[in-house]
Amino acid sequence: MIKAGIIGATGYAGAELVRILSAHKEVKIEWYGSKSYIDQNYADIYRNMFELVEDVCRADDIRELSKRVDVIFTATPQGYLASLLDDEILSRVKIVDLSADYRIKEVSVYEKWYGLTHGSPQYLSEAVYGLCEINREKIKAARLVANPGCYTTCSILTAYPLIKEGLIDPDTLIIDAKSGVSGAGRGAKTANLFCEVNENVKAYAVATHRHTPEIEEQLGIAARRKITVSFTPHLIPMNRGILITAYASLVRGKDQSLPSWRKLREVYERYYGKERFIRLLPEGVCPESRWVEGSNFVDIGFQIDERTARVVLMGALDNLVKGAAGQAVQNMNLLFGLSETEGLLSVPLFP
Amino acid sequence: MIKAGIIGATGYAGAELVRILSAHKEVKIEWYGSKSYIDQNYADIYRNMFELVEDVCRADDIRELSKRVDVIFTATPQGYLASLLDDEILSRVKIVDLSADYRIKEVSVYEKWYGLTHGSPQYLSEAVYGLCEINREKIKAARLVANPGCYTTCSILTAYPLIKEGLIDPDTLIIDAKSGVSGAGRGAKTANLFCEVNENVKAYAVATHRHTPEIEEQLGIAARRKITVSFTPHLIPMNRGILITAYASLVRGKDQSLPSWRKLREVYERYYGKERFIRLLPEGVCPESRWVEGSNFVDIGFQIDERTARVVLMGALDNLVKGAAGQAVQNMNLLFGLSETEGLLSVPLFP
Amino acid sequence: MIKAGIIGATGYAGAELVRILSAHKEVKIEWYGSKSYIDQNYADIYRNMFELVEDVCRADDIRELSKRVDVIFTATPQGYLASLLDDEILSRVKIVDLSADYRIKEVSVYEKWYGLTHGSPQYLSEAVYGLCEINREKIKAARLVANPGCYTTCSILTAYPLIKEGLIDPDTLIIDAKSGVSGAGRGAKTANLFCEVNENVKAYAVATHRHTPEIEEQLGIAARRKITVSFTPHLIPMNRGILITAYASLVRGKDQSLPSWRKLREVYERYYGKERFIRLLPEGVCPESRWVEGSNFVDIGFQIDERTARVVLMGALDNLVKGAAGQAVQNMNLLFGLSETEGLLSVPLFP
Amino acid sequence: MIKAGIIGATGYAGAELVRILSAHKEVKIEWYGSKSYIDQNYADIYRNMFELVEDVCRADDIRELSKRVDVIFTATPQGYLASLLDDEILSRVKIVDLSADYRIKEVSVYEKWYGLTHGSPQYLSEAVYGLCEINREKIKAARLVANPGCYTTCSILTAYPLIKEGLIDPDTLIIDAKSGVSGAGRGAKTANLFCEVNENVKAYAVATHRHTPEIEEQLGIAARRKITVSFTPHLIPMNRGILITAYASLVRGKDQSLPSWRKLREVYERYYGKERFIRLLPEGVCPESRWVEGSNFVDIGFQIDERTARVVLMGALDNLVKGAAGQAVQNMNLLFGLSETEGLLSVPLFP
Repeated sequence: MIKAGIIGATGYAGAELVRILSAHKEVKIEWYGSKSYIDQNYADIYRNMFELVEDVCRADDIRELSKRVDVIFTATPQGYLASLLDDEILSRVKIVDLSADYRIKEVSVYEKWYGLTHGSPQYLSEAVYGLCEINREKIKAARLVANPGCYTTCSILTAYPLIKEGLIDPDTLIIDAKSGVSGAGRGAKTANLFCEVNENVKAYAVATHRHTPEIEEQLGIAARRKITVSFTPHLIPMNRGILITAYASLVRGKDQSLPSWRKLREVYERYYGKERFIRLLPEGVCPESRWVEGSNFVDIGFQIDERTARVVLMGALDNLVKGAAGQAVQNMNLLFGLSETEGLLSVPLFP
Repeated sequence: MIKAGIIGATGYAGAELVRILSAHKEVKIEWYGSKSYIDQNYADIYRNMFELVEDVCRADDIRELSKRVDVIFTATPQGYLASLLDDEILSRVKIVDLSADYRIKEVSVYEKWYGLTHGSPQYLSEAVYGLCEINREKIKAARLVANPGCYTTCSILTAYPLIKEGLIDPDTLIIDAKSGVSGAGRGAKTANLFCEVNENVKAYAVATHRHTPEIEEQLGIAARRKITVSFTPHLIPMNRGILITAYASLVRGKDQSLPSWRKLREVYERYYGKERFIRLLPEGVCPESRWVEGSNFVDIGFQIDERTARVVLMGALDNLVKGAAGQAVQNMNLLFGLSETEGLLSVPLFP
Repeated sequence: MIKAGIIGATGYAGAELVRILSAHKEVKIEWYGSKSYIDQNYADIYRNMFELVEDVCRADDIRELSKRVDVIFTATPQGYLASLLDDEILSRVKIVDLSADYRIKEVSVYEKWYGLTHGSPQYLSEAVYGLCEINREKIKAARLVANPGCYTTCSILTAYPLIKEGLIDPDTLIIDAKSGVSGAGRGAKTANLFCEVNENVKAYAVATHRHTPEIEEQLGIAARRKITVSFTPHLIPMNRGILITAYASLVRGKDQSLPSWRKLREVYERYYGKERFIRLLPEGVCPESRWVEGSNFVDIGFQIDERTARVVLMGALDNLVKGAAGQAVQNMNLLFGLSETEGLLSVPLFP
Repeated sequence: MIKAGIIGATGYAGAELVRILSAHKEVKIEWYGSKSYIDQNYADIYRNMFELVEDVCRADDIRELSKRVDVIFTATPQGYLASLLDDEILSRVKIVDLSADYRIKEVSVYEKWYGLTHGSPQYLSEAVYGLCEINREKIKAARLVANPGCYTTCSILTAYPLIKEGLIDPDTLIIDAKSGVSGAGRGAKTANLFCEVNENVKAYAVATHRHTPEIEEQLGIAARRKITVSFTPHLIPMNRGILITAYASLVRGKDQSLPSWRKLREVYERYYGKERFIRLLPEGVCPESRWVEGSNFVDIGFQIDERTARVVLMGALDNLVKGAAGQAVQNMNLLFGLSETEGLLSVPLFP
């Protein structure tokens, strides 16, 4: 049995880790870390776990924890892990970091967008960006995995093959994202009260959202050059789910013709045809967040708009699963040589 | 492997059977019956099952089906199974009927509340009322199980021990039930459109809901006499979940004292202490539908109101799981001698 | 023009006062009091008022305020007004208090249920309970009006005629109430976050909710004796609206017959037939919160259950309008001799 | 008093016309037309109107109706009005058509996108596109007003000044729209059931939505040339409200500098500074649908993204008010020389 510790187990992403790991055959959770609920029964905080989890919450002591477990998940605010990580800890355990601390390779970019001084930039080069479908082999060999953000996972997986193959112009890429409210976390903020969010839709962090540089860095790697994208997140009244709608100009062939739906589809199949967690939808079918709720799937579809010579790409995932805890467990499975799908095959819940 | 057929696989309860059974280790679904979608891909109707179910929908031919499978689930309108069932079918397969056809033992009561002539009353005495926690041993020996209704499962399990032990006066029992909209089915009715249900709460079928006689019959068995209860269902804007709030006058002891919370709790523990799917909540904690969503749990709590000498009983379940498909699978597990919890241990999904 | 001041203008009830008064022809709001947002633009807090309200929020200084306005609305926590009110203030302005401070006449009952020492019990006898349909004439002559609670308005108006006329047994009265989330206020509490409330239903404050003694006192006046009722509030995922479902045993006639629907209806008509804000629904029609949203209406319906000899009473209102700010304005209209419906005739918004 | 008739009074847009007109001082509704509910009480279909509307629904007979009223609103499916309109009708009444029949001037474009043969193209040149803020003077002189679509009103008003002034490149314009479900109408379709829409977000009609050519035609007039835009609508789980997020490349000045926020704002003010129903938000504030719910306002904001040299435009309105019935009444006010805001000043309802 792999012994796991969770730092930040009482946030929504942490709670989703608990839900998934408690059904995982090869893992036992040894430590439910929490800043706010120390010594309280975990199941008193999340009553869905009543009679399923007997443990109490413990302090977020990563050094102590590193002596007791094989893997640590950090579902913590930005800056937490970077400020504490050292060789001693890394020599003992593998770490899957759900925060942004090691996602962005360029420390100046991180520091600019997050307004923080990075506490341990020496680990940036070692950390592997944990997008399993793209970096699978590197992850298997890693000690430190930077688990991607929810918007970024959805955005990158949806656009990656077409950018890698030069079928769309990266500089025309515009990503309009819609997210359920669980992405905003469990902090008691007026802005996330039921009555403030229900019957409402809004954009936020326009032109300034921190997932932007993460998307740009990863898609830039695919494009083999620096790229700049427009990314706009929106908050909509539902618990779970992200849909991204992305727009890009198609690159015409030598004869000035637009690539066909079939051709783009073949590219997607080449990249994702064997991926268990990516579902490529048939022509004419749009992804919907409800069809992936509670699962680790990403559903991808697209539509060519000949009038504008653009393609409209769409991707949907559950922000707490493939966008956070599910992907973290997928990374852990890779780190420990388990079946990549172990614990992650739950069927989407509808309605 | 047990071969299963579902008649009515494209309604919400049928789809939940598909979701649960597709993760059940001992079962293979052989037949996705549907009246409306014959020959269409099942996963085109329920896209959460995309790449998980490859089959097409087939006609609802129960006779043909009975030759091919070991168990049939009928998630069909009232009257369907009663009009078709015969000895030949029953000699071949076990049946878990999610409709009301065999729930009520008194045929006149069924015919009055449902406005139907019962097509095969000869099987009423054989049919076992499939409330596993109460009729477990009978179910194991049955061929035909009448799977209880969603409201009734919640109401009966919540009130049963106190009525059986004579701690509340059954004739004072008033059940006020609140349900999510999936209980209303997938039929295209104006009344169930998003805009009609959202931002609304209403009672319906006041004093006339068909689950009333089912509750009365089963709780009457517990009370060892005929009883009459008030039952009022309400529709509230959420997908899944039922909460019942029940009121009853406590029976005073010989010294005219009211029973204590502790005493009632001991009774509940005697009945349900070992039940995996019933969770008895601590004092002061009220059940909430969110904590059981997607699971087969029933959460039960209660509060004594000394001022009125009443007890307020509360029970919560997921209407599609313990209130329909989950309980049906629990019944199937009993019918075939499997572990009762097989396929039913998924952790409640929150948020 | 009547000059009005609002203390607590940045809570949901205060904001609803602003919405209603800003369309009221005879009133000008002079003072937007707020504890949390002093000196901020009111329209920055509630952007629906952008370009409609130009003022900034001011401190909650009731003494200063009493010199500047004709009427003060206090949409404040319990205990606030009671601790500050004195003869000087009352000599200058009329007050409509949306808190509970002067609703309950027995000071010991108030102090027990609210856990507060009442700061000015000397005004309890003067204060008029502001349920306009019942206390209209007293309100017209008052200086201090205790605006009823949301649950209580709905409960009392629904049950009042039948209790007054002795048609139901008050001691059998059980009120099961369902409320939207705006009733919980705009405070930043985890329990009221979108993800905690959405897809959920729960009871709360079972047997201990503070609106209980208020209901008992007022309905006890109708019954001409002390009565005790069961009252259970529930939180459901919608912004606005309350539905109460009340159960009571019908009092049989001398011939042991139950009163007919028609007879009860005639009683309701006698009491409410001319009331503009009470709508008596036809037989077979249940109130729904959506039909009163945004309006000052209370919709009332009922159903006789002959099997149990009970009547099921149902009432629906908008908790922020007739349950709070609308009723407060209705009281103000009476206090100042205006048309009772002035500013309150907005049509319910659906969907 | 102006006598008004509504054809299609029992759809959501028709019901909103009833709501608004019933509070309009200069109008009396003479005819509640309906295809589905002839001879039924209107208030039985929309119970919010109980005791407010006493009339019954009548057949959709436009010829008969034209003899009895001064203005007809047609809230009908596409093709209805075009197939019936003639000189006789137009000689008697003014018409505000909420369908698309006369919105698009090029008949071939209409016929291609709508898949219909236009029944009376002879009136296309006479019909005035009823976007009041842009075509005010023409509307005043018209007999036949083509009331704009909900998405189009929001899209055009938001982008118009910047396109007219050449500050953005029209061919880079991408409009990503999010709508509540009432825009889908009251027809009983499975896709619009509560459980299908709740907890879901999806794009639909990608690259094929019929509002696209309407946007292109009107913004093309502003650009003084043909333009092509990307338009993608999304359905989100709320009753009312549209938010559009639009992306466009800024046109650089002669010195290659990007225009400043201040400069764009001045342009908006020049166009809309005196418009009562357009609210230009301060820098850094994004429109949200909740702040306009139930009102005729359009809230507009924008953010410059220097990294991509794009501007992100955002507009929010209530699809049933400014996006349909409110704008129709605004057009009627212009047609009859009334104050343009009459009946349209209701304050947005929040929460």
